[in-house]
Amino acid sequence: MAPEHSTTLIVTDLVGIFVFAVTGALVGVRKELDVFGVLVLALATGLGGGFIRDVLIGASPPAALQDWRYLLVPVGAGLLTFWFHPTLGRLEKTMNVFDAAGLALFGVAGALKALDYGLGPLPSTLMGLVTGIGGGMVRDMLTSRVPVVMQRGELYAIPTAAGAAVAAFGPEAGFGTTTVAIVGGGLCFVWRTLAMWRHWHAPVPQRSASV
Amino acid sequence: MAPEHSTTLIVTDLVGIFVFAVTGALVGVRKELDVFGVLVLALATGLGGGFIRDVLIGASPPAALQDWRYLLVPVGAGLLTFWFHPTLGRLEKTMNVFDAAGLALFGVAGALKALDYGLGPLPSTLMGLVTGIGGGMVRDMLTSRVPVVMQRGELYAIPTAAGAAVAAFGPEAGFGTTTVAIVGGGLCFVWRTLAMWRHWHAPVPQRSASV
Amino acid sequence: MAPEHSTTLIVTDLVGIFVFAVTGALVGVRKELDVFGVLVLALATGLGGGFIRDVLIGASPPAALQDWRYLLVPVGAGLLTFWFHPTLGRLEKTMNVFDAAGLALFGVAGALKALDYGLGPLPSTLMGLVTGIGGGMVRDMLTSRVPVVMQRGELYAIPTAAGAAVAAFGPEAGFGTTTVAIVGGGLCFVWRTLAMWRHWHAPVPQRSASV
Repeated sequence: MAPEHSTTLIVTDLVGIFVFAVTGALVGVRKELDVFGVLVLALATGLGGGFIRDVLIGASPPAALQDWRYLLVPVGAGLLTFWFHPTLGRLEKTMNVFDAAGLALFGVAGALKALDYGLGPLPSTLMGLVTGIGGGMVRDMLTSRVPVVMQRGELYAIPTAAGAAVAAFGPEAGFGTTTVAIVGGGLCFVWRTLAMWRHWHAPVPQRSASV
Repeated sequence: MAPEHSTTLIVTDLVGIFVFAVTGALVGVRKELDVFGVLVLALATGLGGGFIRDVLIGASPPAALQDWRYLLVPVGAGLLTFWFHPTLGRLEKTMNVFDAAGLALFGVAGALKALDYGLGPLPSTLMGLVTGIGGGMVRDMLTSRVPVVMQRGELYAIPTAAGAAVAAFGPEAGFGTTTVAIVGGGLCFVWRTLAMWRHWHAPVPQRSASV
Repeated sequence: MAPEHSTTLIVTDLVGIFVFAVTGALVGVRKELDVFGVLVLALATGLGGGFIRDVLIGASPPAALQDWRYLLVPVGAGLLTFWFHPTLGRLEKTMNVFDAAGLALFGVAGALKALDYGLGPLPSTLMGLVTGIGGGMVRDMLTSRVPVVMQRGELYAIPTAAGAAVAAFGPEAGFGTTTVAIVGGGLCFVWRTLAMWRHWHAPVPQRSASV
């Protein structure tokens, strides 16, 4: 029932997990947690989004619990960050581009997996979004702060949702899986990268004396 | 295996989701999140309780992922709150009555669904409670505060648990589903409304020098 | 498919849940929550780790929702703490030893259950760890603090992971379930107790001006 994964997909998947895990581990280092706290944040950030999606669509156990590489990558990312965090912290711009790639990949792959499990296109878009941003939200809940993705700042979730929507609604409109994956993923990646570069923001509520 | 839903039930369900979603979105507006943060809080508050229940009783994917209306209602509630929050904020008393109705409905419906999935009456009571208050707890965890339902204040959870218990234990005592739903839901709604009106509180721990 | 439980195992399991629930309820008393908040923390701390494990390995509904004793024990622990917290607070050292026993038991039992559900030894180790420390992490997220297990302090998670690893990798190496349970649980208990006594810590990241 689970979708077939080509080697390319697995490699990109693992790269996405690695980058997300590094962002989690860096938060742990900055919060001055011990090595275990850093590893928990690496695992939760790298795998959290996929775990939430798989539990909600009924794909249990999640893929990451059936293939040891999916556990070793975030553990490795966490240990590397623990030891070499000054270097990794300096690579923030590079990391952000990889993060955008992870977002594009996770959003599209999450939406396609939800379709595979029989969900309609709108719920599948939501599942793609959850796959992309869920790990970061778990990371922020574990470190007791409002998820950065929900706060005012650069566009992050909306490009992910847009990419996931392309992947989720495309097949119904007659486009092939590869096409919607490339178009959806590309849309998310380009939009997210431009948003970083040009500092685009999402709309905020109007001020009001009564609130 | 899932219970049949009559039109009345679906409409009341959607009203409950709408009101819960508005309470979530209002927290987002007050926390000065952007439009996406407001929508996440609307979705999480409106659907969170049912999601947790469905994942725990093994009813995956949750109903809200199988019917697009269950996604559109909280998204609509979130956008309305985003645009019209000064008006909605002023309707707080009216909202609280609808919230009590949502609580009554979710508590009873959650307990009955758990019974349907083969759980005993005590676990089903817990599942009804989780359905009623889970969304608000997720909302509060996402905004980094101790869930208001756990803090000292007006009775909120105990009427929900009582209503859910009536629905969960009633059928075993020979009462029909409609009867226990009306009695349980009515008990929760009346108790909760009276608690708001008369400012009833739950017991608090005795003070002690050693703690 | 679920593993058979002997009477000894059930009794130890319930003792572990009881002690974890008391630690959760004590946090609620200290945070000055009302009786319901205290009960939520007792339930979440006593049962949270097992719930997360069961949802992830696809064992739903979780065992604790199929046997009313698993609900009554944390509720009882919560009410006892609510009424007698000055006494229980004074027994902290005794409680810590029971906590170490609960950790040993949950870590080993969680790993063995994951093996039973077809997971490999590495994911099963993770599931054992989640069973042991997950309840406490949920408790801390509900009270809006970074989970203590992730903060700098005494060794807590690493002995649990070690015990779970013995239980998860032992059977593949030809050892019987009873043997790996005793060796793994003993390793965790002794290591954790020694860590409390000698104040052993986990490694922390090196300081760096760039972070």
